[in-house]
Amino acid sequence: MDIHRYFDEFTERDWQATSGDQEPVRFAMIGLGWWTREEAIPAVADSALCETSVVVSRDKEKAQSVADSVESVEAGITDEEFHDGVARDIYDAVYVATPNATHLPYVKSATEFGKAVLCEKPMEATVDRAEAMVTAAEDAGVTLMVAYRMHTEPAVRRLRDLVEEGLLGEPVQLHGHMSQRLMEMIPNPDQWRLNPDLAGPGASVTDIGLYPLNTARYVLDADPVAVQASMDSTSDAFDAVPDERAAFTIEFPGGVFAACTASQNAVQSSHLQVIGTEGTATLDPAFFATEPRELTVSRAGTRVDTTFEQVDQMREEFDYFADCLHTDREPVGDGRHGLVDMRALEGIYEAAERTERVEL
Amino acid sequence: MDIHRYFDEFTERDWQATSGDQEPVRFAMIGLGWWTREEAIPAVADSALCETSVVVSRDKEKAQSVADSVESVEAGITDEEFHDGVARDIYDAVYVATPNATHLPYVKSATEFGKAVLCEKPMEATVDRAEAMVTAAEDAGVTLMVAYRMHTEPAVRRLRDLVEEGLLGEPVQLHGHMSQRLMEMIPNPDQWRLNPDLAGPGASVTDIGLYPLNTARYVLDADPVAVQASMDSTSDAFDAVPDERAAFTIEFPGGVFAACTASQNAVQSSHLQVIGTEGTATLDPAFFATEPRELTVSRAGTRVDTTFEQVDQMREEFDYFADCLHTDREPVGDGRHGLVDMRALEGIYEAAERTERVEL
Repeated sequence: MDIHRYFDEFTERDWQATSGDQEPVRFAMIGLGWWTREEAIPAVADSALCETSVVVSRDKEKAQSVADSVESVEAGITDEEFHDGVARDIYDAVYVATPNATHLPYVKSATEFGKAVLCEKPMEATVDRAEAMVTAAEDAGVTLMVAYRMHTEPAVRRLRDLVEEGLLGEPVQLHGHMSQRLMEMIPNPDQWRLNPDLAGPGASVTDIGLYPLNTARYVLDADPVAVQASMDSTSDAFDAVPDERAAFTIEFPGGVFAACTASQNAVQSSHLQVIGTEGTATLDPAFFATEPRELTVSRAGTRVDTTFEQVDQMREEFDYFADCLHTDREPVGDGRHGLVDMRALEGIYEAAERTERVEL
Repeated sequence: MDIHRYFDEFTERDWQATSGDQEPVRFAMIGLGWWTREEAIPAVADSALCETSVVVSRDKEKAQSVADSVESVEAGITDEEFHDGVARDIYDAVYVATPNATHLPYVKSATEFGKAVLCEKPMEATVDRAEAMVTAAEDAGVTLMVAYRMHTEPAVRRLRDLVEEGLLGEPVQLHGHMSQRLMEMIPNPDQWRLNPDLAGPGASVTDIGLYPLNTARYVLDADPVAVQASMDSTSDAFDAVPDERAAFTIEFPGGVFAACTASQNAVQSSHLQVIGTEGTATLDPAFFATEPRELTVSRAGTRVDTTFEQVDQMREEFDYFADCLHTDREPVGDGRHGLVDMRALEGIYEAAERTERVEL
């Protein structure tokens, strides 16, 4: 990579294939929790490629209230109305941000209506249900993308470029971590992320451990072949899940190991490091939408610390999805890409339970 | 800790109990490889508490040549002469830096002569032989210390202080890594570190993975309860050992996991990170004697990067040993401390072989 390009195009949308003057993709936003209201809807309001035209909630009043507060929204409807096809003519795609174990029915209805789907990660609570989502989308011939915002994060893309160019030599080992204090962010002990019926097998690996897992895959352009894991839950709030704290090792082809940790009960912190035969690269902070990212690359005794203009990760993610729709191309994070993570997650919980290596 | 003390006493020898004007401890240096010649002997030459009075080698000519080149040395003797007690009146202690699997007989002879022992790590090739070393030292009533130079590394000591003071809250997870390109450092394919008969079970975890393992123990002031591991050897030079590359998870009491990696065939790189409920602390670089260490601590949105005057790690280690001898106190890294690592190392290789968690 030319050094001019490294400076001038660090945050460039190298994925954008359209000019951006197409009609915006109109979204039905399904699930109006804080993430949708405070991150997704504002990001889309700021986008030229997308707009929010419909909001969907279990609660009619909440749907109506959000609809009233967002200028572009034409309808606030209930789940039931959504499944009945209400307002289907005024949206082109859906964004599913409900509890993990409830994604499937929304995806099924959306695909029946011929709508493209952007679905939050993890895809669902089980591999079987995630597979059913993929089948539904493929049968209907609609795009299904999993909301991996790291795929359009500039520092992650540059890290991937540098790895691909061999700047680090052959990748040998990775370290990845993500932690936050969930009970301080959302002080409700009955929240869905701590309820296996709604969240899936756990709280830390599924919700945030997925970041080092998926980003390692993305940066290496490789899929895991085996996993090992250790988990522990001690605090009362984490009684129902095995992984208040988790450490897991992901084995990639060629003996490349990623040593990862995740916890919903530790200080907010995240990093991803790649150690190669010739150099190292570290993103720290790496994964939080609300923190600046920094990329540090070392090789041949030289260390380069890169800071850069931050982007709105959610806007980039929605716009990438819209750009794929406009150009009729498959997003990198499509349903089959997401299924690999779902199998890895299942393997990680199984490995912790069996205290042994699980091949994927 | 007072902020004045943090600045002014960062590199202070807070372990030193003597005034330093005692007679120096006279060492017989056993094994005259590059580490002894280029690191240990110069460090001791620079020390007020120690001196090198005897050097021991398999090769009489090498012993004589090193003896001639180091001012304080009074005798250059062979292994056989050492075991026969030659020159035993002109040294007080031995430093054993031969291949791992050959430490025991030197330690046995030294303890029979009533000499204190500073032994390179890992202690030996097997737990049984390391236990025999401990028994020999205890029966003879002499001090046996394992050469953990991180125990007197200022940044490691300050990290341990901050953890003990609760600055990071409760420790939750650790990351540790050490790698180097052994075949570039020592281009000989027949070197002992790649020969299981001389090195013990492996090449990467035993030789350098021991750094994150032991330093994590030291910083947490805790011993491991279980391990998991994955290993891979692909390159020809690493044919005889399982761990050209290794990832291992160390489980400490209370569900504190350390996610570690080590490789003798990756770019020189090292780090140790502690993630707590309230903050994080990172040493990067962490372990190489020839690199500056840096300590970064984050808490409550504030990040403090600390650089400091580097110390000669080997001199500090020798002087700590001498200080313990003069005050008749047990060093932190004594034989029983070293045995915990030996059992953990054995567990790590067994866990990789069996692909399952091994309790220690």
